[in-house]
Amino acid sequence: MASYDLEHPAMTDVELTDVLFALSDPARLAIVREVSEGPLSMAECGATNPALPKSTKSHLMKVLREAGIVRNEPEGRGRKLSLRRDELDERFPGLLDSILR
Amino acid sequence: MASYDLEHPAMTDVELTDVLFALSDPARLAIVREVSEGPLSMAECGATNPALPKSTKSHLMKVLREAGIVRNEPEGRGRKLSLRRDELDERFPGLLDSILR
Repeated sequence: MASYDLEHPAMTDVELTDVLFALSDPARLAIVREVSEGPLSMAECGATNPALPKSTKSHLMKVLREAGIVRNEPEGRGRKLSLRRDELDERFPGLLDSILR
Repeated sequence: MASYDLEHPAMTDVELTDVLFALSDPARLAIVREVSEGPLSMAECGATNPALPKSTKSHLMKVLREAGIVRNEPEGRGRKLSLRRDELDERFPGLLDSILR
C-alpha cells in the first residue's frame, strides 16, 4: 500500500466550506496542528493519540487530503504527511493563521 | 413565537470546531455573509434564497445561534438576527475576517 499515489485536489477546486468542514472535527484539527509544525510520517502523526484506531486515522487523513489541506505522499516504505500551507494561504488568506494560532 | 427569548452560549464556552462546523455549510455561510453587513430581520434574511423552506431556515439559524455566531432576538412582532462580530473577533482573532473576505 505504501507506494500508492493518492489523488490531491487542485487548490483552485477547493471550496472554503470543504476546508471549514475538514477542520471542524477536533481529531482532524489536532492532526492539522501537528503537521503545521512540519511534515510527519504517517506513523508519527497522531502519536499523541495512540488510542486512535488505524482505520479511523486513515479516514481522518482522507477527509483532510480530499479537502486540500494535507498532502499524503509515499516516502520510502511509509507515507509522509504535509500541510499544503502556502497553497492554502494563497487561496484563503489568513484562514490557517487564525485557526492555528 | 416572536417574543420568545432563545438561549445564546457564552462566547467563552464556544469552541473553534463548533464555529468551523457552523460555517462549513454553504447555506449557513451565506446567512453569515448577509448578517455581516448589519442586523437583519428574520424575514429579510435569506431573502436572496426564497426557495429556502421556513423549517430549513429555522434549523440553519439554530445551528448558527448555538455555535455562538449569531444573536436571534425578538424585535417588535418579529425577530432580529445579528452577527456576534466583536465577541467572535476577540475569541478567534482574524477568523471571520479571513472567512468573510
